[in-house]
Amino acid sequence: MACEFSTIGLIGKYGDPGVGETLLQISQYLEKYDCEVMLEAETASMVSNQHLPTASLKTIGEQCKLAIIVGGDGTLLNAARNLVDYNVPILGVNLGRLGFLVDISPDDLIFRLDEIFNGKYEEEHRILLDAVVYHKDGSISESNAFNDVVVHKWDVARMVETETYINGKFLNNMRADGLIVSTPTGSTAYALSGGGPILQPDLDALVLVPICPHTMSFRPIVIDGESKIEIIVKDSTSKAQITCDGQINLGLVSGDKVQIQRKERVVRLIHPCKHDHYEILRAKLRWGENF
Amino acid sequence: MACEFSTIGLIGKYGDPGVGETLLQISQYLEKYDCEVMLEAETASMVSNQHLPTASLKTIGEQCKLAIIVGGDGTLLNAARNLVDYNVPILGVNLGRLGFLVDISPDDLIFRLDEIFNGKYEEEHRILLDAVVYHKDGSISESNAFNDVVVHKWDVARMVETETYINGKFLNNMRADGLIVSTPTGSTAYALSGGGPILQPDLDALVLVPICPHTMSFRPIVIDGESKIEIIVKDSTSKAQITCDGQINLGLVSGDKVQIQRKERVVRLIHPCKHDHYEILRAKLRWGENF
Amino acid sequence: MACEFSTIGLIGKYGDPGVGETLLQISQYLEKYDCEVMLEAETASMVSNQHLPTASLKTIGEQCKLAIIVGGDGTLLNAARNLVDYNVPILGVNLGRLGFLVDISPDDLIFRLDEIFNGKYEEEHRILLDAVVYHKDGSISESNAFNDVVVHKWDVARMVETETYINGKFLNNMRADGLIVSTPTGSTAYALSGGGPILQPDLDALVLVPICPHTMSFRPIVIDGESKIEIIVKDSTSKAQITCDGQINLGLVSGDKVQIQRKERVVRLIHPCKHDHYEILRAKLRWGENF
Amino acid sequence: MACEFSTIGLIGKYGDPGVGETLLQISQYLEKYDCEVMLEAETASMVSNQHLPTASLKTIGEQCKLAIIVGGDGTLLNAARNLVDYNVPILGVNLGRLGFLVDISPDDLIFRLDEIFNGKYEEEHRILLDAVVYHKDGSISESNAFNDVVVHKWDVARMVETETYINGKFLNNMRADGLIVSTPTGSTAYALSGGGPILQPDLDALVLVPICPHTMSFRPIVIDGESKIEIIVKDSTSKAQITCDGQINLGLVSGDKVQIQRKERVVRLIHPCKHDHYEILRAKLRWGENF
Repeated sequence: MACEFSTIGLIGKYGDPGVGETLLQISQYLEKYDCEVMLEAETASMVSNQHLPTASLKTIGEQCKLAIIVGGDGTLLNAARNLVDYNVPILGVNLGRLGFLVDISPDDLIFRLDEIFNGKYEEEHRILLDAVVYHKDGSISESNAFNDVVVHKWDVARMVETETYINGKFLNNMRADGLIVSTPTGSTAYALSGGGPILQPDLDALVLVPICPHTMSFRPIVIDGESKIEIIVKDSTSKAQITCDGQINLGLVSGDKVQIQRKERVVRLIHPCKHDHYEILRAKLRWGENF
Repeated sequence: MACEFSTIGLIGKYGDPGVGETLLQISQYLEKYDCEVMLEAETASMVSNQHLPTASLKTIGEQCKLAIIVGGDGTLLNAARNLVDYNVPILGVNLGRLGFLVDISPDDLIFRLDEIFNGKYEEEHRILLDAVVYHKDGSISESNAFNDVVVHKWDVARMVETETYINGKFLNNMRADGLIVSTPTGSTAYALSGGGPILQPDLDALVLVPICPHTMSFRPIVIDGESKIEIIVKDSTSKAQITCDGQINLGLVSGDKVQIQRKERVVRLIHPCKHDHYEILRAKLRWGENF
Repeated sequence: MACEFSTIGLIGKYGDPGVGETLLQISQYLEKYDCEVMLEAETASMVSNQHLPTASLKTIGEQCKLAIIVGGDGTLLNAARNLVDYNVPILGVNLGRLGFLVDISPDDLIFRLDEIFNGKYEEEHRILLDAVVYHKDGSISESNAFNDVVVHKWDVARMVETETYINGKFLNNMRADGLIVSTPTGSTAYALSGGGPILQPDLDALVLVPICPHTMSFRPIVIDGESKIEIIVKDSTSKAQITCDGQINLGLVSGDKVQIQRKERVVRLIHPCKHDHYEILRAKLRWGENF
Repeated sequence: MACEFSTIGLIGKYGDPGVGETLLQISQYLEKYDCEVMLEAETASMVSNQHLPTASLKTIGEQCKLAIIVGGDGTLLNAARNLVDYNVPILGVNLGRLGFLVDISPDDLIFRLDEIFNGKYEEEHRILLDAVVYHKDGSISESNAFNDVVVHKWDVARMVETETYINGKFLNNMRADGLIVSTPTGSTAYALSGGGPILQPDLDALVLVPICPHTMSFRPIVIDGESKIEIIVKDSTSKAQITCDGQINLGLVSGDKVQIQRKERVVRLIHPCKHDHYEILRAKLRWGENF
């Protein structure tokens, strides 16, 4: 059968052999289509019974018309950061526990795949962040983030002091455990733990959420998605760090400047038709249940 | 001297004779320009020593190229709601206490007026809301809101139960003291007391802030400014109310539906050049002061 | 069979005929004991198939050695306030939905009753509040509260301004939607919606929780249970109200003083052995579930 | 002149030569009394112009009837932890910035000293904590804390998972950045940044404040001051740490158990007569100022 997605990459949750069954189910389903399927190499090394050709993430990015991620939101975050420059649409399948991003459940996997391969799907664009650290010593480091970039203290004895600018305008000096810069996608992750608001997923906006600020009137601030955010680490005695999506860490010292901006490229998420983000919110946050 | 604003309306804080001095200062300043100045009628009845022609708010809207508001943020909110359909730019002058909206202080009034009348000003557009109540009995009532529309219980014994839809999609059922729908302008007003985030003033977004919700996982939600919000009052026993900008009240009963949407027209706020909203935030929220 | 509780009063949830079945189950269970059982009069008027003698709440208070409440937490709150002066132990049975106070479920009702009537029970003492309003006109009104006393605005257009004293010492002036004074029991009710902490149920402490305060640095304050709290309504234009347990309302005007103190008498709650308040917290607040 | 305090120790803020002037003022003031004055050795090494005999903190603890601390709250915290076992009353003098603990200002230093040395003072008792870590390898480490004991993650990539027991009863499993166990004294320090309530300073209670918990229904919990708290680090992959008063760090690994209990000994704080804690709260938290 003809298939809109001529080349498909499969990527499984790192270190979880339990993804094997779902990957097998997907690859068997795909057999009826005239499409090439490749399995991400690290995933392949982890699961048995797979006879698919393997490929690196890079190759998947370069060659695939669709990447199917099997795992949790963390798996999809990681894949999305790596694939964003290749403009590959991404489909997230969970392993039984509904995620904000991996919204297809094993229970109705085949039904959902049928919908999607018959063209009944929605493509949603999500912004992600580019964080560049201008180290005081002249070096530069850089990372993407789909959820959030967090500038935070690294040892507890002292707060980190930051000076923040939005589009070159001074916002504030803050002493706190840290400062989260979150995308709408990240607003239901760490930023929510930190007391931030929920942002509609396709809103072109970012939210700055202070973590345990020493001044009680600091509040989450929602700014335009096009904003350029600069955070300068002030405190001379503390060690600080920048963490992207809770997965990538870069060291910071006093005087280092972090520049955060939306990437040009967006993440292209594929959802079944009638995908309803509010339904996921209601389920994940248990809004139906009073205390 | 020629003046960009050929007709200027002056509006003072209601019930505060203390506005007289500042109004006099402004009208004397304006004498050097070839412009017509009119004083809003209720303001005129309150202050002495004014020899200006008086006019209704409606006439000011129809004829003026600039409205200068003297008072607090509440005065400007009220004027802005009344003038929005006439598309008149608004300039806010405070009475000594800095406001989020009335950002020119008596201390540098003449300096700022000079800037503005010499063309050194910025025009900022702020969204405001239109709230329409479709009463169960078929009647309809309507109001504007510059800060917020609040659906809230009216007697304390019971919470109000609401069912909310965003662009026709069901968001949630909520039992709470109320629900605030706030513009970015309103995000530093009642919504802030209710635990909401601060929205960049020109962001095209709205924030829904639950007041004392009975479910702990309800959080402020930031949505696109173009969204159509529908709130249906469910609870059959409670009395409820809708309040706009804390100034206008409309009664609600079970089954009534409130529809809230951004107005097409924006409020045109005039600021001196180099106006800095973050500076106002820092001053008003005392961000410089640690505990 | 002999029974420790020679006279037992049964009280059902007001307006809920569904309590009939559980009441019948209890009264049949009690037949094997040598004890007198009486049904509260309003409850009796609501349920059929009951052939028990009826009695007023007052009579139950005067004559019973145990009061069994069937309903929700609100039913028990109301009964406890009415019975506190009679020093009657109270046992709470829910109707299928676990309560913080009505902790015996229909499912294991007989098992739990067996435990309790065999002397395997724990008695827990809970404090409750006495609120006296000294009206400016010289009149006095008074009410008990088991959960909370709330001084709050009654119309929305304005906040209520209050001046609070603890043991005669000035605490603060506050502009807010209201101020909750809560017992430990009430700390999982309205005070929790307002952002208050959870207090261990037998702690001799009270918590003051501001509702939507206009100053961001107001926070819940936990004080000694023996404290005398005085709240004076300041604002001259607003209407205010005091509400006890969300069930009793008294009007307030500017200048009225509310004095709140722990009652001497405590509520005596009977629980099955190994009663575990933390288990109830975990279940009701769904602590086991991550988002 | 006779003096109630026959031996007095002076302790200055570590690393701040600016304490010299205030220390000199105090030592000159004390010359008129028949009392022995000793200067803490590290303080002495830092300031010039002091001709007082020096002593270790230990000697001050053993010999002094009063310890005067000059510096910020952190200086007093540190001294109090070191002196608590010696039962020495402590007087806190700030360097111009009012503290919650160092409540005597240089401006009225002599006036306040006169009051206190004439017997017009109040002694307030504050509880502090003893934290014992039972390491999985059998070793034990221990520390005092006057403000708070914080169990927290040490690297950001993962939350720390803790299992908490109160008096042997299971409270909850929590995934969070950390968990603060705070005294009433600490309730206006880090616990306040974390969203905790303010506890009356002499209340015999502790508060547990979760830091950025992954479950939205976790809230600060106030428990009896006599409680024994056990926190077990669960997560096998994360590094964790325990920090006392933000000043002392002990490493934690999965399986380590932290036991926290009130110390028998209290800190004896000396205040001038009519000391008013609420006045300090109002000043430090700027309750008088609306936004």
